[in-house]
Amino acid sequence: GSNSTTEETTNNSGNLEGYPGLKIERRGKLRIICFDKPKKKNAIDTQMYRDIVSALSVAAKDPETSITVFTGTGDYFSSGNDLSNFANIEGTIKEAAENAGHLLRDFVGAFIDFPKPLIAMVNGPAVGISVTLLGLFDAVYASDKATFQTPFSALGQTPEACSSLTFPNIMGLAKAGEVLFFNKKLTAKEAKDRGLVTEIFPDASFRSETLPLVEKFSQLPVNSLVYSKELVRSQLNDRLHKINQQECDRLVERWQSADCIEAIMNFFSSKAKI
Amino acid sequence: GSNSTTEETTNNSGNLEGYPGLKIERRGKLRIICFDKPKKKNAIDTQMYRDIVSALSVAAKDPETSITVFTGTGDYFSSGNDLSNFANIEGTIKEAAENAGHLLRDFVGAFIDFPKPLIAMVNGPAVGISVTLLGLFDAVYASDKATFQTPFSALGQTPEACSSLTFPNIMGLAKAGEVLFFNKKLTAKEAKDRGLVTEIFPDASFRSETLPLVEKFSQLPVNSLVYSKELVRSQLNDRLHKINQQECDRLVERWQSADCIEAIMNFFSSKAKI
Amino acid sequence: GSNSTTEETTNNSGNLEGYPGLKIERRGKLRIICFDKPKKKNAIDTQMYRDIVSALSVAAKDPETSITVFTGTGDYFSSGNDLSNFANIEGTIKEAAENAGHLLRDFVGAFIDFPKPLIAMVNGPAVGISVTLLGLFDAVYASDKATFQTPFSALGQTPEACSSLTFPNIMGLAKAGEVLFFNKKLTAKEAKDRGLVTEIFPDASFRSETLPLVEKFSQLPVNSLVYSKELVRSQLNDRLHKINQQECDRLVERWQSADCIEAIMNFFSSKAKI
Repeated sequence: GSNSTTEETTNNSGNLEGYPGLKIERRGKLRIICFDKPKKKNAIDTQMYRDIVSALSVAAKDPETSITVFTGTGDYFSSGNDLSNFANIEGTIKEAAENAGHLLRDFVGAFIDFPKPLIAMVNGPAVGISVTLLGLFDAVYASDKATFQTPFSALGQTPEACSSLTFPNIMGLAKAGEVLFFNKKLTAKEAKDRGLVTEIFPDASFRSETLPLVEKFSQLPVNSLVYSKELVRSQLNDRLHKINQQECDRLVERWQSADCIEAIMNFFSSKAKI
Repeated sequence: GSNSTTEETTNNSGNLEGYPGLKIERRGKLRIICFDKPKKKNAIDTQMYRDIVSALSVAAKDPETSITVFTGTGDYFSSGNDLSNFANIEGTIKEAAENAGHLLRDFVGAFIDFPKPLIAMVNGPAVGISVTLLGLFDAVYASDKATFQTPFSALGQTPEACSSLTFPNIMGLAKAGEVLFFNKKLTAKEAKDRGLVTEIFPDASFRSETLPLVEKFSQLPVNSLVYSKELVRSQLNDRLHKINQQECDRLVERWQSADCIEAIMNFFSSKAKI
Repeated sequence: GSNSTTEETTNNSGNLEGYPGLKIERRGKLRIICFDKPKKKNAIDTQMYRDIVSALSVAAKDPETSITVFTGTGDYFSSGNDLSNFANIEGTIKEAAENAGHLLRDFVGAFIDFPKPLIAMVNGPAVGISVTLLGLFDAVYASDKATFQTPFSALGQTPEACSSLTFPNIMGLAKAGEVLFFNKKLTAKEAKDRGLVTEIFPDASFRSETLPLVEKFSQLPVNSLVYSKELVRSQLNDRLHKINQQECDRLVERWQSADCIEAIMNFFSSKAKI
């Protein structure tokens, strides 16, 4: 409408347009960013990384938005990084790796710096970066059918999205190590017991139970929410940006390594055989 | 007695006198500070804040005290800050807010710097600052009827007593966010699962089970207790004082904000109607 | 064999020789360091401290080793520091305490700096330093018959092996205080709930269930494991070395204190009576 403070276009159903693979919805002061590529299990491609950074920037600036929610369309929350990002590179491998490193750093940085509460509604399985990002959220509600897996080392890679710092902080070294180093796949119950998930809801009523909850939260005074989050993050965000840079630097090296290239080629050749 | 190293007066029943709203009891090397204003649900008024700072100073210096316990008289542990503190202000709102900020900083600082083990025996519901302070304790035993709530944002306020730092450290960001930002009320079981509470005891036998436990602890060599706590806090206390100051600065701003003044006026007008 | 990159001698059964009180075994890329003094409940004597530092140095440098496991022979994981270390001192008490302090600092330092994943298979009761060290491990699997106790203050001592930092990080101050200050003995279930233990297995099948698990982990690309651990420890290890030094300095003072000497003499006189 004419009183909108952002440059968004809203269609009749209340959805905001302009982001392929993402669906953005406003419900009062709640803004819902939805991974919306169900045929690819909501894998995050290069364009989606960029668009999420934009969507977070809009949400941060919009005075009518108090709380931002991430969720997924269909059965998956997100299958993580779209590995076809690796298949469609331009230039040398080194250039592609460095570009991907910059994109990842800026993407994660947008979550670190997001000034308002971030809530995840994890509607189903989460893999890779859609799991590690959760360590930066202020509340995580999960379906009892959700699972959580970060198969870094199996792919010759290393942790990202500050999980090297957030996961040990949340669950202790001995439980974080199993997840970050040894590819342990967590059930929703295990993820809750380890502190990665705030609360679990039955899959059948997941959206109908969690949506009213987060809508209620979105009515709280936005200044108190912003200032409370600022206090919580005041001694943490410098460390988060530092580890984000270190993780991205290491991944740029990893993506050019024999370990990683071999693992990703195996992934594509196994797909090609099917 | 004449060999007492403190200026305390002990009456016949072993209680120490001189603090309205507080009851202080010594049992051997154990010192028990009891919120003792049950008709006001043990709400903490301005004088009690000051007297607790004094009581902690005496306990810290007394060589006959090894462990200090906080508990409450009656059904409540404490309903937190006595909101009538806001009704009885002198001078401008700005002056009153600044004075309250200094008092709060010094009060929390006394808990940060207390050199001997601090144990909470949470006999019933705890609200606001009586919850957030628990993040600075060395053990927290709770009745199964205890509850824990910090309704900051509902009152236009922000976290205090270092909970911006201690709660995420204890329970992880996603569980701390629900408590600090979204006013989640925890049961004793939930508070134990999240690490805020050490152990739960049945309400009917709460005092009779926990008192012998803490009395036994008070027999341990005091030097080992003090030096052990010193090690645990050596890398933490600077960060605690820093966040304490930041939290108090923010609350001084909040207490003068429209959000907060409106919420507190609503509180009193709803009471007036009853 | 002639292609070995280390100076080890392997006997027919695959065991490595040369460390009395320790049994070291290689299974593919897995290296198992076993406390092997079951008649003394795998108590760690002065020579064993030194030999573990050497064994870790060999494991760190061996390109054929990806993961290192600690476990115990017989019913105990380890009863901790062999108190007869205190009975066999040479020179003054001051010299002995300072030498023990240097040994402890270097021993713990070898765990802090170990660059590859460390896994504990806690086959039975663990006491003292065999518990506190677990806070530096990347995964801890425990028999359901394992227990965990750190009776520092009962012996006039103070925490070691960085537990002053790791235990509060893992379980929060209120649960760590009960363990570090008040000698709380944890069951395997309690240790898991508090985050010190990753997972529990039935005692009868403990080795047969955990060994295939860690062998599978040892097949993962070693570079990813090393770089992942490096990221996790990048902001932590400086703080670990600092607290290690502080803890050792305090223990050197404690070992010369009346509290501690009395407690240890009581220990030996009660043994002598039996």
